[in-house]
Amino acid sequence: MSIPSLTLLKIGGGVVEDHHALQALLADFCKLSGLKILVHGGGKSATSMAAQLGVKAQMVEGRRITDVHMLKIVMMVYAGWVNKQIVAHLQALGSNAMGLTGADMDLIRAHKRPVKEIDYGFVGDVDIVNHGQLHQLLQMGILPVVAPLTHDGKAQMLNTNADTIAATVAQAMTHHYKVRLVLCFEKPGVLLDAEDETSVISELTPSIYQQYKKDGVIYAGMIPKLDNAFDALRAGVSEVCICDRDGLNSLDGKFSGTRVFL
Amino acid sequence: MSIPSLTLLKIGGGVVEDHHALQALLADFCKLSGLKILVHGGGKSATSMAAQLGVKAQMVEGRRITDVHMLKIVMMVYAGWVNKQIVAHLQALGSNAMGLTGADMDLIRAHKRPVKEIDYGFVGDVDIVNHGQLHQLLQMGILPVVAPLTHDGKAQMLNTNADTIAATVAQAMTHHYKVRLVLCFEKPGVLLDAEDETSVISELTPSIYQQYKKDGVIYAGMIPKLDNAFDALRAGVSEVCICDRDGLNSLDGKFSGTRVFL
Repeated sequence: MSIPSLTLLKIGGGVVEDHHALQALLADFCKLSGLKILVHGGGKSATSMAAQLGVKAQMVEGRRITDVHMLKIVMMVYAGWVNKQIVAHLQALGSNAMGLTGADMDLIRAHKRPVKEIDYGFVGDVDIVNHGQLHQLLQMGILPVVAPLTHDGKAQMLNTNADTIAATVAQAMTHHYKVRLVLCFEKPGVLLDAEDETSVISELTPSIYQQYKKDGVIYAGMIPKLDNAFDALRAGVSEVCICDRDGLNSLDGKFSGTRVFL
Repeated sequence: MSIPSLTLLKIGGGVVEDHHALQALLADFCKLSGLKILVHGGGKSATSMAAQLGVKAQMVEGRRITDVHMLKIVMMVYAGWVNKQIVAHLQALGSNAMGLTGADMDLIRAHKRPVKEIDYGFVGDVDIVNHGQLHQLLQMGILPVVAPLTHDGKAQMLNTNADTIAATVAQAMTHHYKVRLVLCFEKPGVLLDAEDETSVISELTPSIYQQYKKDGVIYAGMIPKLDNAFDALRAGVSEVCICDRDGLNSLDGKFSGTRVFL
């Protein structure tokens, strides 16, 4: 018996914030064949809500410092505003979407990141993904829509990077499926030249990645994204695709983004 | 074969807003035997978040007017902040809670209330509850935690009164269970004298209710609450209990709140 396929799509950055882009992307997502899970970000909306509430967003190396005020904001924005808009849109498109955080069904258990040089606050590092219950939802015909929040099992919600959530959920689902992880954002893929959108690197293996990193071609926010991607591959995910909306459309044919594999 | 029992608890008012009261109440709730669903409000938190964001909360006859700004606030506060706090607490207590709005799994479909004398804005009147999927979740050992939001199936989220959600979900679940609806708030029950907490009316039937309403003993916000309760009873709910936390504790023994029946 062949293992069924699952596509886990992570959408972040500008895609989540732009209403029309999001609608178009969700329509494309619904057309993809096979079982699906969606993981979303929402950092820009959280930053803007923080500004409206007079809470200063603190970032260190692209990671948000989550104090008690910011935790309330990310809970409101990710699980309330962004998640439910996406769920309502998918429902309108005929997909039986259900919004989840790591606390719901005990889906993603994490622990508060220990304080070393930096105190990240209420940020969770993932311990375990309850893949059995997620599998059961998929078998019920449900499309899980996961917000980047986890819990510690002691009533504390925690903020967790959406790329990390996507990679760890993808890994966990390899217990049941052949998993393809798709990271969709506003760029057409990993670029050789950040200013040139036609300079997409079509394939990345660990050795090519190390070389590009050494040469400074790949830097900043792309590094944790790709580290997550390679971790997921090493843990059994079949392939990782990094693309924009056009790439999402071409996933089942001649793929136009960056394909990452071991 | 006897029909299994289900208790649907609605918590609102001060109970949701007071962290310690909420924790204690959730612990009591977990001790109740049988299958359970929780429906929560959060209006006071929404009003306070609106004030922080400079959005004016408009109320007409105890019902909130939901403009586009207020809709965003109730989505954030109900589905994000309040719902996930409750879910994380229940998980810590060992209950496999899952947060839901009407959009998730297409659980509660509604239509935007038609504009007559008053334009309530993005307020939804319930059309249908997807009791089959809720039944499936209960059978999986999940404790559904429902936020007072619905959707119209065309990507529009809608604000819906939590008492109404509780009553209509209770009704719908009579397809599968013997349903007891418990409305838990800061008062020990329906009071003969609003100033005297010992004046709990222990039993209310339609005829007693009509008399009290006529005499002005029961008034204001208690009227839609009781109308909802009687509607639920007429639609097959076995009994409606109105109580505070002490009443919740006594549900399975000598009940101390107001029992409503036909």
